[in-house]
Amino acid sequence: MGRRSDHSRDELRAMALEAAGDIVKEEGIQKLSARAVASRIGYSAGTLYLIFHNLDDLISALNALTVAGLRARIEAVARATADPRERIRAIAHEYLFDSVKEPELFRLAFEHTAGPGSPVPGPIAAETGAIVEIAVNTIGELLPDADRRSCTLLAAVLWSSVHGICHLGLTNKLEIVGRLTAEAVLDRQVEVFLDGIS
Amino acid sequence: MGRRSDHSRDELRAMALEAAGDIVKEEGIQKLSARAVASRIGYSAGTLYLIFHNLDDLISALNALTVAGLRARIEAVARATADPRERIRAIAHEYLFDSVKEPELFRLAFEHTAGPGSPVPGPIAAETGAIVEIAVNTIGELLPDADRRSCTLLAAVLWSSVHGICHLGLTNKLEIVGRLTAEAVLDRQVEVFLDGIS
Repeated sequence: MGRRSDHSRDELRAMALEAAGDIVKEEGIQKLSARAVASRIGYSAGTLYLIFHNLDDLISALNALTVAGLRARIEAVARATADPRERIRAIAHEYLFDSVKEPELFRLAFEHTAGPGSPVPGPIAAETGAIVEIAVNTIGELLPDADRRSCTLLAAVLWSSVHGICHLGLTNKLEIVGRLTAEAVLDRQVEVFLDGIS
Repeated sequence: MGRRSDHSRDELRAMALEAAGDIVKEEGIQKLSARAVASRIGYSAGTLYLIFHNLDDLISALNALTVAGLRARIEAVARATADPRERIRAIAHEYLFDSVKEPELFRLAFEHTAGPGSPVPGPIAAETGAIVEIAVNTIGELLPDADRRSCTLLAAVLWSSVHGICHLGLTNKLEIVGRLTAEAVLDRQVEVFLDGIS
């Protein structure tokens, strides 16, 4: 399995993360192992452990990429939408759209923890924080008299609401209730939120 | 490992589910295997496979128990709370409280799927549906002019909102945002919901 290293450390890291993402997308979270990643890139698992401390470390790096992609797309959508009410709708829909497009990567990014109570790794926390910050600022435009703390609390309300739809949707639980689609629940939820805060 | 069967099929089933629950609570989801369950109850893994088709089947049975417990506690809280606005607050808090009390069992119940796109097993769907039904009826009391379909959609909005807080909270993501507690976000969320629908 092992081959002479033809690649730099950075190249190996990028190859491993791409292979890990492909395994999760094609075969599901359960099939992700150091061995499976190593086999895809033609190196030994031992080589992988020179780049990542362990499988958790590799998964965290992959999850940081997933959340960075989500952040970039939500940022683009937010920048393209001037009206703050419309912008709330647009970022909520982009979040849902993203979760559905790569369901297994999204689930891994939001379900994985290194163990009960372990903190979210720094890069993932930074990207997630940047997403919520877009909501905080947009809510600030909608409620010019509200202080930053109130806007942050409302952004957390919006984020967890939208995230709940994504998570129940991806685990096929939403359809238990009157065969509702995630889109229908999201549309209603965003309107309830906008009506509730105004 | 194997021992002569001193227990009936029903007793074995109950023992296996209790052992599986203990493993998840004490050691985490990752440590749950047919071997670990069999070892705890002093039977062989082969005996387990006479009762459950496979590990997924055992996990589904365990998850059905978890969601049934949640349903029973939410039902009790709902029955004890006459005012419908108060009842919405009470059931939302009970859901959060339950998720925090046994975080690993709650995560397993809501994160586990037998594979991408596989439907929720019947018993879990029935218990989950019963929980949402309590919300549908309470919203119906709050909005006597709304038809059942609207109340169901609003119940799904409430459920996914509360669930999102639980899931982000249990994976330690809520604290990324201004060190908010799940309780603080839940309180604000329920008020936004009640204001938004009235």
